Amino acid sequence: MSSPASPFVVTDGRHFRLHRMDPRGSSHLSLSKEEAAAQLPDAVARLAALQEKLYAHSRWGVLLIFQAMDAAGKDSVIKHVLSGVNPQGCQVAAFKVPSSEELNHDFLWRTTARLPERGRIGVFNRSYYEEVLVARVHPELLDNQKLPAELVTAQIWKERFEDIAAFERHLARSGFVIRKFFLNVSKEEQRQRFLKRLEEPAKRWKFSLGDVRERERWDDYMRAYEDMIRHTSSPDAPWIVVPADRKWFAHHVVAAAVIEALEQLDLKLPTMRAPQRRDLERAKGELERQAPKRS
Amino acid sequence: MSSPASPFVVTDGRHFRLHRMDPRGSSHLSLSKEEAAAQLPDAVARLAALQEKLYAHSRWGVLLIFQAMDAAGKDSVIKHVLSGVNPQGCQVAAFKVPSSEELNHDFLWRTTARLPERGRIGVFNRSYYEEVLVARVHPELLDNQKLPAELVTAQIWKERFEDIAAFERHLARSGFVIRKFFLNVSKEEQRQRFLKRLEEPAKRWKFSLGDVRERERWDDYMRAYEDMIRHTSSPDAPWIVVPADRKWFAHHVVAAAVIEALEQLDLKLPTMRAPQRRDLERAKGELERQAPKRS
Repeated sequence: MSSPASPFVVTDGRHFRLHRMDPRGSSHLSLSKEEAAAQLPDAVARLAALQEKLYAHSRWGVLLIFQAMDAAGKDSVIKHVLSGVNPQGCQVAAFKVPSSEELNHDFLWRTTARLPERGRIGVFNRSYYEEVLVARVHPELLDNQKLPAELVTAQIWKERFEDIAAFERHLARSGFVIRKFFLNVSKEEQRQRFLKRLEEPAKRWKFSLGDVRERERWDDYMRAYEDMIRHTSSPDAPWIVVPADRKWFAHHVVAAAVIEALEQLDLKLPTMRAPQRRDLERAKGELERQAPKRS
Repeated sequence: MSSPASPFVVTDGRHFRLHRMDPRGSSHLSLSKEEAAAQLPDAVARLAALQEKLYAHSRWGVLLIFQAMDAAGKDSVIKHVLSGVNPQGCQVAAFKVPSSEELNHDFLWRTTARLPERGRIGVFNRSYYEEVLVARVHPELLDNQKLPAELVTAQIWKERFEDIAAFERHLARSGFVIRKFFLNVSKEEQRQRFLKRLEEPAKRWKFSLGDVRERERWDDYMRAYEDMIRHTSSPDAPWIVVPADRKWFAHHVVAAAVIEALEQLDLKLPTMRAPQRRDLERAKGELERQAPKRS
């Protein structure tokens, strides 16, 4: 059965080309904005129910990674798709500029502490992928990492892709389901969203001049995203290249992909063995005997 | 130049056989107990000086892993070889039975938080290798990890070796030098050390009945150690199979291996550029001008 997310899922990146992906997703759009808006509450409720099962089952964990250019809508997707989920079973970690303690470790170190436990959905708002995006577009950031000079060779990005892929394979083998979302916004849509941020007082706090500077490196970023998707897509940890020019469509696609990821787990409530059932029967009997005597 | 450690270093484990390694190391012994004892203070001082350089250089980090059967002398090696090192540049982490929070993550998770920073020597007294030793000899421990049943296949140990090797390759690429020590004690020597622990009141606290139970699984453990060394030895993260029946010889070999690992780094003190040198000259001038006036 085809799902709203399937046209955008990359499980093998070898032939992936970013320019073939339409940020409006027009050719795969089978519903209107109103229909999508009407369906979202159902999707959110389904997700909340699935998360309850994940929590009770407590063997699988889920890691959702979001990467995108500024103003592509990462915060908005997380808010709209995951707001119905019990926060006890869902942890969001946002990664900004690394601290000096974090730079004193390997680039996979700082995110590990924030990985979800079994039974939980962990959300990474940015992640270790920043290493092959920002640090690649701005190689001067590598200097801050104080790597021994002899290790910074022409191979470094290939090695980082390899290390990331191996780490995700290890997580998958350990029972963690990974879904990685690249919110694919167009340069023109970003420009309009930036302008809106500048015009609306309620959004102005979200704007920084640095965002416009980064925009000048747009093509470098697109090359870095494409290369990242080509090298780190796998059936266990696919990239989902979400058309992000229309927020409602992005929410629709992300919700569908997360629901699918949970549904394929076929989560059953923990089954009870005979001795456990006997214990529960005994507990029930005891509680019943403790009923206050009628006076 | 051959070093006292070289006969025991495994950089390629494919043909490794544990039974070929003599726990007394007799054929490689070129010095007496008295000579080794006389040399140790020199080695410790050299190590302390190298560690100062590592700290000042602050680009490389060092990870030393110790694995062994009970009473093989892990604590003793750490104490005797590393006691001269400034504790500000050396962190020891001991890993015991995993907590329930730790079990809720993948098996590489709990050690990551304790990895050394650049410029430091990190010591793991036991490590993620417990996973392919204790958990392999006692597969019932895998149940505690609450892995999804479909992931526990006949491939699981091969997969864990692969994941560990990939993780260590990533650490090496990030500037962390890894040396892994298996203290190779014989079953008879362990028996005598256990007896000593029971007889000497000052050592009795170190004894637990569980240690004798584990001893019954000696051959299973040796098979697990051998398989581990065969699958996870590499030039970047070699195993050093230290003859451990004589503690003084074990100290001698471990000290030599750690010194070599640091010496091959060819650590230079950070060099200064012209503007930095000018700043220092200016600071010197200012401090000199602030000298109290003669009255």
